[in-house]
Amino acid sequence: MRDVYVIGVGMTRFGELWESSLRDLFVEAALAAMDDAGTDRLEAIYVGCMSSGLFVGQEHIGPMLADYLGRIPIPATRVETACASGGAAILHACLEVAAGVSEVVLAGGVEKMTDGADVTSALATAADQEYEVYHGVTFPGLYALMARAHMHRYGTTREQLAKVAVKNHRHGALNPKAQYPFEITVEQVLNSSRVADPLRLLDCSPVSDGAAAVILASEEVARQAGNHPLVRVAASAQATGTIALHNRPDITRLDAVEQAAKEAYRQAEITPDKVDVSEVHDCFTIAELCVMEALGYAEPGRAAALVDAGETGIGGGMPINPSGGLKAKGHPVGASGAAQIVELVQQLRGEANGRQVENARIGLAQSMGGTGASCTVHILEGIS
Amino acid sequence: MRDVYVIGVGMTRFGELWESSLRDLFVEAALAAMDDAGTDRLEAIYVGCMSSGLFVGQEHIGPMLADYLGRIPIPATRVETACASGGAAILHACLEVAAGVSEVVLAGGVEKMTDGADVTSALATAADQEYEVYHGVTFPGLYALMARAHMHRYGTTREQLAKVAVKNHRHGALNPKAQYPFEITVEQVLNSSRVADPLRLLDCSPVSDGAAAVILASEEVARQAGNHPLVRVAASAQATGTIALHNRPDITRLDAVEQAAKEAYRQAEITPDKVDVSEVHDCFTIAELCVMEALGYAEPGRAAALVDAGETGIGGGMPINPSGGLKAKGHPVGASGAAQIVELVQQLRGEANGRQVENARIGLAQSMGGTGASCTVHILEGIS
Repeated sequence: MRDVYVIGVGMTRFGELWESSLRDLFVEAALAAMDDAGTDRLEAIYVGCMSSGLFVGQEHIGPMLADYLGRIPIPATRVETACASGGAAILHACLEVAAGVSEVVLAGGVEKMTDGADVTSALATAADQEYEVYHGVTFPGLYALMARAHMHRYGTTREQLAKVAVKNHRHGALNPKAQYPFEITVEQVLNSSRVADPLRLLDCSPVSDGAAAVILASEEVARQAGNHPLVRVAASAQATGTIALHNRPDITRLDAVEQAAKEAYRQAEITPDKVDVSEVHDCFTIAELCVMEALGYAEPGRAAALVDAGETGIGGGMPINPSGGLKAKGHPVGASGAAQIVELVQQLRGEANGRQVENARIGLAQSMGGTGASCTVHILEGIS
Repeated sequence: MRDVYVIGVGMTRFGELWESSLRDLFVEAALAAMDDAGTDRLEAIYVGCMSSGLFVGQEHIGPMLADYLGRIPIPATRVETACASGGAAILHACLEVAAGVSEVVLAGGVEKMTDGADVTSALATAADQEYEVYHGVTFPGLYALMARAHMHRYGTTREQLAKVAVKNHRHGALNPKAQYPFEITVEQVLNSSRVADPLRLLDCSPVSDGAAAVILASEEVARQAGNHPLVRVAASAQATGTIALHNRPDITRLDAVEQAAKEAYRQAEITPDKVDVSEVHDCFTIAELCVMEALGYAEPGRAAALVDAGETGIGGGMPINPSGGLKAKGHPVGASGAAQIVELVQQLRGEANGRQVENARIGLAQSMGGTGASCTVHILEGIS
């Protein structure tokens, strides 16, 4: 297995993009990534998408996107692990390059959620349909259970949850691709509409359209390109957990995230304290806290204290979601895992402009599906 | 890249299986494959499924199936290339073993189509939604266009199409897993209900539930298992074509099939005449003829003459779909590509009982999505 490098990144703006269809979005992101890489060479395509069937009545998007990128007959495969689909697409593309099957592979993600589908029902298909959804539970409901349990067990407060959203909006305000590029206050979060108690509207990531794409290549191709500082994929790991929340011994813990992170640290030969910048799956504010604990950034129950202390903001000791995260940047579900890699590459190249994390050399991206039944963790290393 | 072997196969019966849910079906097939392999060791799962979201309201089936197989936290990914999803799952699992990432991987496919969804609309999501489906075309309609063009260009007759179905039902009658294990006559095909002229009901594969699974392993593990004759994956290839039929210069030709076959023959270092037994994607009778031509089994327009001559039956010189094919065995779309591999392995081991192709040593499986925009081709070699 050889090293894999990211040689190009691109993404659309995230938001309610009514003027663009799913294919338009993915092609825009892919062309931007190819332009950034300075090459139009591609040997395979992996696209992450959670539910184009339910959202826009289109399955089989792999060949459709290869076709509209002008890249048939190269192989094109959709991979799906719910909201971690973009991360899974990158993982399988990395494997193909690492194995020496291909020199240059496009991986990305896309979702078109605002075309009129019943979004809450479509998202609920990431949970256990027979044992959770049929009984009426929704995703905000499941994460609300996790939040209540965390508050009960560890004393985490409503205000601490709000501070996660406030921090991510502060970052998102600096990101021209963000769906909600504006700041919010703790009071605004606490006074926003109740969605599933204790979670309120401003605890929740939005419904979004968007796409993100990454070009992965062998070291030889990466060194030939030479138009950017090199970014190496130091780890690419995936794990699963129980699909239904009620089957877990402790619903404040994310076992699949712990497992994927452990494997990623092993591959990269680092400990969590070596990570300079992270993009994590903050689909709800409580998720960011549980993920921090599963990644080993904090002991169980201690993540909120780091948020209180300002450690997770840009300029803090452990900057998380400088892009604005799913909360402020937007969450086109299949694209989010790929957009995390776009952000990290810009950070590690020193191209993140107003939201640059100083001296960022090691970046970690964590993406998850459902209530954490799927997880991918990638670690990237900037090589100057 | 090292050699990959199939060490276990399993499948459910195909049919209207109202007593089993999607997860039941996949778990049944996977446990049968593990039992056949004589091992419960698994390091990753790939599951092909076209549209569990539209058929049963459940996405994110990778971790759900890993969970219900008792296999968390191993990675589990759904791959989707419409009706070729099962073939794509096997392809990506082969890559993982060939790359040395894993020693033993489960790959399979599943679809649960009879739970009340609008099946024709759901299947149409494999075509180009914006440029074909919105205008009212269905899958039988698209294949009917291909049939008409083939009849017009080459003089292929209605009776020749019927003979494909008759031959596949003759084979299916010998397969205890088949949905329709009975023979039919040319007259019955010609007198069956018109679906999309010139295609009639008995030209069309059925709506089915079912699952199929395969255990792939390294040579070392395969030789240790030792409970079956060895079957090596000699080629695993994938290609894409235009998603919309109207964008093709010749709608009687399947470019993606030609490309995938060319790559598969290159990998296996064989020519088409070396293939002893084939499983091909006969979603409609016309498809089997077009696929035969794309695989190089016949010159363009000459496939029907081989059917007339009885060459494609068991006992003929070029046996195709000894399992009964999609037509008689059934077509749970995400499972079909995996079920082809199950059949070939049984043929190459000499375990196909009443439908055994004598002296079968090289088998080819061809699976496609939509009107052929995705294609996988696998070549297996029995090693005595």
